[in-house]
Amino acid sequence: MELTSCLLFRCHDEVGIIAALVEFFKDHKISISRFEEYTDASSFFARLEWKGDHPWSNGVDFAKQFQSVAAQFKNTSFRVHFFDQPQKLGLFSSKEPHTLIEALNKCEAGDYPNTEISFLIANSPSIEKYAKRYDIPFHYVKTYKDPVRHEKEQLQIIAEYSPNLIGLARYMKILTKEFIAAAGCPIVNIHHSFLPSFVGAKPYELAYERGVKLIGATSHYVIPALDQGPIIEQDVVRVEPGDSVEHMKRIGRDVEKKVFTTALGKALQHKTITYDNKTIVFN
Amino acid sequence: MELTSCLLFRCHDEVGIIAALVEFFKDHKISISRFEEYTDASSFFARLEWKGDHPWSNGVDFAKQFQSVAAQFKNTSFRVHFFDQPQKLGLFSSKEPHTLIEALNKCEAGDYPNTEISFLIANSPSIEKYAKRYDIPFHYVKTYKDPVRHEKEQLQIIAEYSPNLIGLARYMKILTKEFIAAAGCPIVNIHHSFLPSFVGAKPYELAYERGVKLIGATSHYVIPALDQGPIIEQDVVRVEPGDSVEHMKRIGRDVEKKVFTTALGKALQHKTITYDNKTIVFN
Amino acid sequence: MELTSCLLFRCHDEVGIIAALVEFFKDHKISISRFEEYTDASSFFARLEWKGDHPWSNGVDFAKQFQSVAAQFKNTSFRVHFFDQPQKLGLFSSKEPHTLIEALNKCEAGDYPNTEISFLIANSPSIEKYAKRYDIPFHYVKTYKDPVRHEKEQLQIIAEYSPNLIGLARYMKILTKEFIAAAGCPIVNIHHSFLPSFVGAKPYELAYERGVKLIGATSHYVIPALDQGPIIEQDVVRVEPGDSVEHMKRIGRDVEKKVFTTALGKALQHKTITYDNKTIVFN
Amino acid sequence: MELTSCLLFRCHDEVGIIAALVEFFKDHKISISRFEEYTDASSFFARLEWKGDHPWSNGVDFAKQFQSVAAQFKNTSFRVHFFDQPQKLGLFSSKEPHTLIEALNKCEAGDYPNTEISFLIANSPSIEKYAKRYDIPFHYVKTYKDPVRHEKEQLQIIAEYSPNLIGLARYMKILTKEFIAAAGCPIVNIHHSFLPSFVGAKPYELAYERGVKLIGATSHYVIPALDQGPIIEQDVVRVEPGDSVEHMKRIGRDVEKKVFTTALGKALQHKTITYDNKTIVFN
Repeated sequence: MELTSCLLFRCHDEVGIIAALVEFFKDHKISISRFEEYTDASSFFARLEWKGDHPWSNGVDFAKQFQSVAAQFKNTSFRVHFFDQPQKLGLFSSKEPHTLIEALNKCEAGDYPNTEISFLIANSPSIEKYAKRYDIPFHYVKTYKDPVRHEKEQLQIIAEYSPNLIGLARYMKILTKEFIAAAGCPIVNIHHSFLPSFVGAKPYELAYERGVKLIGATSHYVIPALDQGPIIEQDVVRVEPGDSVEHMKRIGRDVEKKVFTTALGKALQHKTITYDNKTIVFN
Repeated sequence: MELTSCLLFRCHDEVGIIAALVEFFKDHKISISRFEEYTDASSFFARLEWKGDHPWSNGVDFAKQFQSVAAQFKNTSFRVHFFDQPQKLGLFSSKEPHTLIEALNKCEAGDYPNTEISFLIANSPSIEKYAKRYDIPFHYVKTYKDPVRHEKEQLQIIAEYSPNLIGLARYMKILTKEFIAAAGCPIVNIHHSFLPSFVGAKPYELAYERGVKLIGATSHYVIPALDQGPIIEQDVVRVEPGDSVEHMKRIGRDVEKKVFTTALGKALQHKTITYDNKTIVFN
Repeated sequence: MELTSCLLFRCHDEVGIIAALVEFFKDHKISISRFEEYTDASSFFARLEWKGDHPWSNGVDFAKQFQSVAAQFKNTSFRVHFFDQPQKLGLFSSKEPHTLIEALNKCEAGDYPNTEISFLIANSPSIEKYAKRYDIPFHYVKTYKDPVRHEKEQLQIIAEYSPNLIGLARYMKILTKEFIAAAGCPIVNIHHSFLPSFVGAKPYELAYERGVKLIGATSHYVIPALDQGPIIEQDVVRVEPGDSVEHMKRIGRDVEKKVFTTALGKALQHKTITYDNKTIVFN
Repeated sequence: MELTSCLLFRCHDEVGIIAALVEFFKDHKISISRFEEYTDASSFFARLEWKGDHPWSNGVDFAKQFQSVAAQFKNTSFRVHFFDQPQKLGLFSSKEPHTLIEALNKCEAGDYPNTEISFLIANSPSIEKYAKRYDIPFHYVKTYKDPVRHEKEQLQIIAEYSPNLIGLARYMKILTKEFIAAAGCPIVNIHHSFLPSFVGAKPYELAYERGVKLIGATSHYVIPALDQGPIIEQDVVRVEPGDSVEHMKRIGRDVEKKVFTTALGKALQHKTITYDNKTIVFN
């Protein structure tokens, strides 16, 4: 398989950025195969892709040389990814399996680039059967009201696998600030409402109560503030008159599946830049 | 044109309601042409339609006879509408004309049943030209921070026309509890966000700030609590990376147009029952 | 679990049908819990649901008594279903597993009423692993260009299980008229295009060629004419500039999954009436 | 207002195109403010935008200098547009006014860049009132079964205004190959079905007949083959059970409005490249 690589770049918007980026690659005899850029109020964001060999043995090596470009602009941040390196995805789940199953299926179908699911942690033993079906290492970790009681054990498992990304497949437990810092990789959550509406544990009940005509789901990167992280993807589905909370949960499951696995895919394809508690998502 | 009539009915859910409703009409030699019913947690809602002549000279007359059915069930409420009576729609507008224009066009195109727009009140003189295009009586009423200063004049105009429904086409002013009570008919508002997210005056700015991936619009009946009334219709549109607040406002306009005129249509077709601060909307 | 039952009814539209249906149930001391009706150009369609015991031991018994109602109207057809009887679903698959997996998951999640998947027939051995995961009897049947060569063996398997419904989960083989007649139950197919566009074997390639901006999927009951059966459900997804045929196939898979399993659900909930090569689908 | 300009570029895909494009502008001391590119099976497409002054007095001048870049690649085609030049839009209409009104409103609201509607030709006198409302020159041209009888008169009017784009707002008449060639500018049509389904004059009737669950609209550039031109935009809306052809026409109107005015906007923003009877549409 041909090696594909990408650069994600952000800086303060000004003239000359596109030319500087393109020139850098030309100088290194690399032809950009995909160039996508956006500008926000005052920021510039770009994702560049190239195929085949390149002169950099790793990201640190790239950064050293790219520094000359980055230094020309203000508030610069960037990261590079070489897709020949397999990515390890860790999954957390609670007793609702639908988003988990969809993620397992997408991964098995090859929808995620060079990705393997390295472990599945759940606080319900009923989840083990899904791990077995897909031959994924399973860890049952009982959870408590006080997260400190179970996070240590979870962090030991994470340390063992060193995942590149963690997906919370309806895990439904609050993560401490310390856990998020110690995990060592981005964490993607699926929330079963159209945020910022209906933050917290009972969004379908609250949506029913308010009488909204569409219900939704939101996938976001996890930050210490509950359900406040940068949004990656959202979608909605229409509620019909007379739909009960139970029915809303059932139709909501399909939206949650779609939103969660889309967000995981964007993260694993390195198509997101977070800034200012928002996410720029590339096509 | 053939006379069409409808009954909207609500009561505590229990056995025998459908049979009782159908029997009442059969006893009056009326064939139901459309029957739609829903049940919620503990309530039953129905809308029945029939065509042609009937023995009731008006709603009061109907109510007198229907009382025998209504008395069989708990928490009953009902209303009847005969579509031979032309309906009068009053419109309020501020300086943003897009939802107003869409409502004027829908009415002209005959999308609303037997409806005429009887007046247009705006706090911006720039709106008068739209009234002229459609030959609608126009009233310029200057508005103030304190609504009491302008609501008296507005209520005099309303009293003059006695509308069956008022539509707030991006009117953007808070109505007092007293005004709502005195208006004498339901009031439909369009809010430019996907409620309950982003209540208040700057929803697109807040949506941009939060980084949501879909923006929306909500049409609801007006109650004294701001943006808290029973929701009639909602819809959303996708935001693309780099979309500015200005761009969000532009794409949001089309959603606002659709949601507002759909809600007006449902109200004018007598296809809504409000209860418990929610709206059952019939097809 | 409480017994739920339903009646699906169709006849030539005329006055008095609703009253006649409701009265029949009242005469049998049954309270209708759900009543849904539609009228088309000249036909009337209804679905009635009731809960709890009833005086009919089976559908034949019901039909005998209901005959008095049916006889009052023209072109009448009806069927009754008692949901206490478990329904058997048979699945056919080819080598693309995504719609199959979604159907297996929906069934396992309890989204289909009182349904068990009784068998899975595939012409690719790679499908067996999915059958094993969900503990479904699997039958490998090799297929040939001439369907007569494999249909006999398939029909023997069908005869063994007597399914109530067969779902073709991207089976991708033409069924003979004889097979359809001999199967003894309705057959639901998923076609990977927005029919009637792009009939036949290569819809994504044809959609790409034509440059359409939305691609879709269609689930329909199978009739002898290829891809011409009554449509149950359709949906679409947007194509972005530069999307290859391969990418269209990937995003199309999610639409196919949704459309196929929605259609299976409607069939298994007995919410469809076919007539005039169309399908009335109840909510 | 600041001058904005754009280049639309297409060639056979190979390495080095992005660098060559970017370098050309750098050499002319122009900073690209927006860069968007796609690759198809074997083609490369890009749209570049820049702001402010530039050294080219017109498109011919630009082409002369850009020729050196274009010559480096195969099957190259390009065009440049300077948005300081007002664009003239001509509209054709028949008796259905909804897409026409939406285009008039969008233009008045400033949704199209530096665009004025220079004339409206209709074959129904009932359309004149819309022209008057928006103060647009109106020309009534009676149409005949044989288009040769009216196209000469229409072409004289077109010649008088020299529009940059013609929009057929439900004009519903077949254009001859000679007319299309003589018009001297691209022509955008709205077809009231989800093409390639239901080509021709009665799409809603055919959609009803086939029992599709979604109906749609398609906007495309006009070529001599009827309804076969490169598609710019499509969208759909869901049909509910019992919806009549009349109801489908009514809900279809809103989709037609949206699709037509979106397509006009894309054409007027110079965001389309047609090739191989398809349209690449930039964001």
